[in-house]
Amino acid sequence: MTTTETFPQVQQWTDLAQQLRVDSIRSSTAAGSGHPTSSMSAADLMAVLLTGYLHYDFDNPQNANNDHLIFSKGHASPLLYSLFKAAGAISDEELLTLRKFGSRLEGHPTPILPWVDVATGSLGQGLPIGVGIALCGKYLDKLPYHVWVLCGDSEMAEGSMWEAFDHASHYKLDNLVAIIDVNRLGQRGETELGWNTTAYAARVGAFGWNAIVIDGHNYDEINRAFAQASQPNGSPTAIIARTIKGKGVSFLENKNGWHGKALNKEQAEQALKELDHVRSKTFPVHKPDESRQPAPEPPKKPLELPKYDGKEPVATRKAYGDALQALGAANPEVVAMDGEVSNSTFAEEFAKAFPDRYFEMYIAEQQMVAAAVGMSVRHRIPFASTFAAFYARAYDFVRMAAISRANIRLCGSHAGVSIGEDGPSQMGLEDLSMMRAVFGSTVLYPCDPNQTAQLVAQMAEHDGIVYMRTTRGATPVIYSPDEEFMVGGSKVLRQSENDEVTIVAAGITLHEALKAYDQLKGQGILARVIDAYSVKPIDEETLMLAEQAGNKIVVVEDHWPEGGLGDAVLDAFSQRDGPLPEVVKLAVQSMPGSGTPDELMEEAGINAHHIVQAVRALVRNV
Amino acid sequence: MTTTETFPQVQQWTDLAQQLRVDSIRSSTAAGSGHPTSSMSAADLMAVLLTGYLHYDFDNPQNANNDHLIFSKGHASPLLYSLFKAAGAISDEELLTLRKFGSRLEGHPTPILPWVDVATGSLGQGLPIGVGIALCGKYLDKLPYHVWVLCGDSEMAEGSMWEAFDHASHYKLDNLVAIIDVNRLGQRGETELGWNTTAYAARVGAFGWNAIVIDGHNYDEINRAFAQASQPNGSPTAIIARTIKGKGVSFLENKNGWHGKALNKEQAEQALKELDHVRSKTFPVHKPDESRQPAPEPPKKPLELPKYDGKEPVATRKAYGDALQALGAANPEVVAMDGEVSNSTFAEEFAKAFPDRYFEMYIAEQQMVAAAVGMSVRHRIPFASTFAAFYARAYDFVRMAAISRANIRLCGSHAGVSIGEDGPSQMGLEDLSMMRAVFGSTVLYPCDPNQTAQLVAQMAEHDGIVYMRTTRGATPVIYSPDEEFMVGGSKVLRQSENDEVTIVAAGITLHEALKAYDQLKGQGILARVIDAYSVKPIDEETLMLAEQAGNKIVVVEDHWPEGGLGDAVLDAFSQRDGPLPEVVKLAVQSMPGSGTPDELMEEAGINAHHIVQAVRALVRNV
Repeated sequence: MTTTETFPQVQQWTDLAQQLRVDSIRSSTAAGSGHPTSSMSAADLMAVLLTGYLHYDFDNPQNANNDHLIFSKGHASPLLYSLFKAAGAISDEELLTLRKFGSRLEGHPTPILPWVDVATGSLGQGLPIGVGIALCGKYLDKLPYHVWVLCGDSEMAEGSMWEAFDHASHYKLDNLVAIIDVNRLGQRGETELGWNTTAYAARVGAFGWNAIVIDGHNYDEINRAFAQASQPNGSPTAIIARTIKGKGVSFLENKNGWHGKALNKEQAEQALKELDHVRSKTFPVHKPDESRQPAPEPPKKPLELPKYDGKEPVATRKAYGDALQALGAANPEVVAMDGEVSNSTFAEEFAKAFPDRYFEMYIAEQQMVAAAVGMSVRHRIPFASTFAAFYARAYDFVRMAAISRANIRLCGSHAGVSIGEDGPSQMGLEDLSMMRAVFGSTVLYPCDPNQTAQLVAQMAEHDGIVYMRTTRGATPVIYSPDEEFMVGGSKVLRQSENDEVTIVAAGITLHEALKAYDQLKGQGILARVIDAYSVKPIDEETLMLAEQAGNKIVVVEDHWPEGGLGDAVLDAFSQRDGPLPEVVKLAVQSMPGSGTPDELMEEAGINAHHIVQAVRALVRNV
Repeated sequence: MTTTETFPQVQQWTDLAQQLRVDSIRSSTAAGSGHPTSSMSAADLMAVLLTGYLHYDFDNPQNANNDHLIFSKGHASPLLYSLFKAAGAISDEELLTLRKFGSRLEGHPTPILPWVDVATGSLGQGLPIGVGIALCGKYLDKLPYHVWVLCGDSEMAEGSMWEAFDHASHYKLDNLVAIIDVNRLGQRGETELGWNTTAYAARVGAFGWNAIVIDGHNYDEINRAFAQASQPNGSPTAIIARTIKGKGVSFLENKNGWHGKALNKEQAEQALKELDHVRSKTFPVHKPDESRQPAPEPPKKPLELPKYDGKEPVATRKAYGDALQALGAANPEVVAMDGEVSNSTFAEEFAKAFPDRYFEMYIAEQQMVAAAVGMSVRHRIPFASTFAAFYARAYDFVRMAAISRANIRLCGSHAGVSIGEDGPSQMGLEDLSMMRAVFGSTVLYPCDPNQTAQLVAQMAEHDGIVYMRTTRGATPVIYSPDEEFMVGGSKVLRQSENDEVTIVAAGITLHEALKAYDQLKGQGILARVIDAYSVKPIDEETLMLAEQAGNKIVVVEDHWPEGGLGDAVLDAFSQRDGPLPEVVKLAVQSMPGSGTPDELMEEAGINAHHIVQAVRALVRNV
């Protein structure tokens, strides 16, 4: 057996690892906060990775052949930034801006740095996103790059990690390597499994991974583990490294109470003495393997959206599937995934037409959104779908995707009480609220299949987090296939010069609004009806015209009263000068049970009958 | 080895299982929808459980010694309701009301039925909640009841299941049994692992459980597995049962395309023939083991909340910990749990004082909320805490907890950009929106330690989902310890007869509002300042008084603009007759990075400086 001494690289690794430790301490001490000890435990691992196994062109982070390095334990950002300095990507001066206002070196990594793929810092997300990139590498890019993910041991308690372990082995992602830094100490004491690397190995192994247990400070073992992990054998590899938190500094090593704490100046000086002082060496990093080149961009075809002639009602969820398939035919960059409900969301139409670009994510919504984010890193146009209700399962991933500046499209079907008999667990009643409260998001809610198709096409063109809500039941076709719909737009479906009130609706309630219009007209009340299919951004300009219609508005939605269309309308008015109109919000006010869609819409107070009542109360005080 | 023939109970089990299958078909066919085939696969398992191992007094579902039976695969509700009929709890007539409007038998189980502990139907939740009940049984109730959880195989892909497997073995929950119905077929085809029961056993075993693989239609094997699972041996047990979806009916067995589909009348008749027709037998169920009785309710002591004299600033998160400890001293029913950040949320104060009533949930927020729900089932008063941002991880559990009519208290610390250097991944900027959009929820956001303490006490008294948002940094004490605060209340902190504007704030921004008041006063503008610490329900009555102050309002919050305090204020006005006031919302409009709290509040446009600007623009048009 070789020993560490036989490796000529050992001196280089030692030099680099100590520099990484020194820089992790210096940068966090300069910041006055941060995570030096969680950085130091993984310094040896990362030193060997950077100089021996990572293939990355730091001058060209967009090189398609680059490996991907993700710090799932994002709090070890001092280590990551120290690696960037060691690779010559950032200066020592910039390193010392860590956590300062305006610096690219945030407390947790974000992609405002060109070498960072995604934001981390909410634990348990880096590995699932790594699965997404590795899926793309193996099945779409078909390039030999590796995805290296540095994981913490505390985050092994997050279920999302096990969704990733599960999916990675299912998809045989032998281009994916998890490096688990088992430093034993979490934020407030020992982790669940402590240094029980055998238990980690058993779990990871049972999930179908190659598990390699090593001493994370033994270069020989580290080197051999990376060498082994680099060889594709049909399974992903986890390197389970027993490490020491604060490794290298006597008063930090394996000590509780040093999580997320910067050393003060005196402590830092003492530590630097033990670590043999400051240095700013640049270390060579392998350029990516260019033996295979990305396939030339396949030709795009003109988009031919499905058209619905209106002879029979069609569910918007069906139109989503039809349009997604059309989009897939036109644009080879479009990919799709679903949480084992593709026959309900109708993503199955895409899956059947383009099986190579469809990824079944089973009932693992966190992994599904993470995979979409991973696809976005590799510039694909991902569409993910499940029931609207189940995005609540993945909300932290959606939140973080916004911080990652990811471009992902999400479709939530089975929105609202109008799904009927399945009951409240299956009803998306907070999805509009959830998705509106995501930074820079777009939220769409079509009522008609032709509108849905147009908006699905818009989704592909749109950056950021784009969400579409669809309806379970078939609804009448009210728009012609030639009608155009834009993000930020709306349609005024009924209006006259004598309108006394404006009814704002979207999706399922739009049809109720149209029924209410007819009933009200019969009673001598003219209403304006607006289809606010773009819930965010909402069409403020058109809403403002409510002033011409008595400055009274009824908003109706199949959603809890908080955070949905009603609040979007109110918010639109708060943006302008002058007092607000009278607004009545109709929304689901009580806990629904099972029943027919009609029964539940009546009980919820959001059908035509209730709209008529609300309008009459508002304009006639009856 | 015994064979099935040697068991005298076999005839009874067969009778019962066939009745369960018949009833699953009859009820779903009567409903016109539902999941008969997913019920039929588990009928043999449940027949043996009901008559042999479940200890439950159906006449007294509140008996503390009752076992708990949770259908984590909630879509198998026809089977559950058929069990209730077989136990004599519901009539055949009621069984046939399945999924009908007004029926207790909803499409997925909810606790409007007295024998149902929690709502299921969002997969992957029943087992984590079972962990919560089992924790309570073993460590708090100290009663010999068992928790039986029927799980689907599709839901094994949900990360939350593995959080449950992990925590159950960590806490040695040998009173917990997972019965995994491996019927191979998910909603849209084969599951990830199909009938690979060996793989399931390896995974579950690696997570520290006893794994028993059986043929789920072989009574001998089922019986022995339950017998073994009933014996406490320090570890939870998983019975991994290979089953056939649609078992018992030739044209349903192991057929794809029969998920979630009711048989039509003709199909049902055919099926019933094969299953030997309708019967309505009642089967005896063991009464619970009463050998141990619940401890007599321990005496409550007067609550002595912490008091803050105002000599130095105190963070509301610190006051949360202090108050929780005080609450724990007064009321032995109060329990707490945290997601491995108790030294940040200050739940550690409770943990140190009452280690027997504190449960470390590690970094597994879904399991944390599920454990709280489980504690609520057993009538404890659970307080769970983590960073506000990380509730996004558990949102589906919070959503379902509302459907479960659970009474849980959640505290989210580190809200908003005011946390400073850690960056956006750690900033709760959507938590108010998330929590407002939960049915029947209460949302509190104190600004001061004395207020926090009072509101923590209120939380314990309050039913439903109660959320408190706390702030990282120390803030001035502005209230005396004797001041009273109520859910639904607010405080008018500054007012005069000449107010030209109302500033509404809460938490961190309240302090900015007070600074802005002083600056505005110096400029000759008098503002009313309202502390809207109860975000939901919000104090509409007090807000309405804005009419006396120029009918102009500035709302300021450390939150995205959507769904938070600003929308709550707008919504309050939409409830009343007459036109709304002018409202300007100040909220976080751009993606924050790292920086000091002051820098980030300035950049976000939510500090005193921006409030003054907004007020001046509103009342002076400058």
